[in-house]
Amino acid sequence: MTEFVHQRHKPPTSLERARDLVLVCAPLRSNVNLSRIVRTASCCGVARLVTCGPSKIDAKIARVSPEEFPIEKHRSLAPVLKSLRSEGYQLVGLEQTTNSCNLHEFSFVRKTAIVVGNERLGLTEDALALLDYVVEIPVYGLPFSYNVATATTMALYEYCRQFPSG
Amino acid sequence: MTEFVHQRHKPPTSLERARDLVLVCAPLRSNVNLSRIVRTASCCGVARLVTCGPSKIDAKIARVSPEEFPIEKHRSLAPVLKSLRSEGYQLVGLEQTTNSCNLHEFSFVRKTAIVVGNERLGLTEDALALLDYVVEIPVYGLPFSYNVATATTMALYEYCRQFPSG
Repeated sequence: MTEFVHQRHKPPTSLERARDLVLVCAPLRSNVNLSRIVRTASCCGVARLVTCGPSKIDAKIARVSPEEFPIEKHRSLAPVLKSLRSEGYQLVGLEQTTNSCNLHEFSFVRKTAIVVGNERLGLTEDALALLDYVVEIPVYGLPFSYNVATATTMALYEYCRQFPSG
Repeated sequence: MTEFVHQRHKPPTSLERARDLVLVCAPLRSNVNLSRIVRTASCCGVARLVTCGPSKIDAKIARVSPEEFPIEKHRSLAPVLKSLRSEGYQLVGLEQTTNSCNLHEFSFVRKTAIVVGNERLGLTEDALALLDYVVEIPVYGLPFSYNVATATTMALYEYCRQFPSG
């Protein structure tokens, strides 16, 4: 039998280069969801997190301060997407749409902005029109939809799996 | 440009066979975390969810009823693990330990029980001693630890990616 002994405070995995990964959140309903996304994004080494609309991070959930993990706040999504496109980011939305790709099979490019929509409404039509790709996550059972922070977790995980060292 | 049009109520992905995947939760501190895990597990088509210790599912978070997604409740973890082992499940813990494998590189077998530990304490020594494998998830940034529901999401996603149709 292999022996497993706790290593609760293992050093983090180091990146060979800073991640070229931006996470963009449309205006969300829930600051709890947003705060959970902040924690996961910071743990994944996301380079920039952009939020749109009014938002308030719950420090107890995010577990990371604005000094440690800065968040860029903008009023609306479309100008952010246009700006990221002009910086050379591939814009990948997380949504169920026509022509969407299965996240399991999607190959990210390094310089990617993952774009996450509102819990109820998803991404608006004008945001969808600005995207290069849409990825969706297979759902197998009730309630037939992932929580927004859960779906974001899966997309960040898949990107990190494809670029384990940055 | 590709056109992306919302399909918010797409039919779920069908499995060719029922998942041979069991998710086992050690006694957790937070029923919120547990309820989030319930929603994600049900969406992923997990066959059986086993919880240990006192627990109460928040239906608003889980979004699935006990009739739709039954949960097996047990008092303690070790007997559950022994029973699953005798049923032929490979027991895979989610933890940072010596000899743990990177989730990015781990090949699951179909018949797997993923075992999740407490938010603060992780899996106990006696639980670790019953496992076949431990997988850990690379962490790149502060706060250097994933929330338990987030880590569970990543493990379930990776299993589903390896067995997309059951």
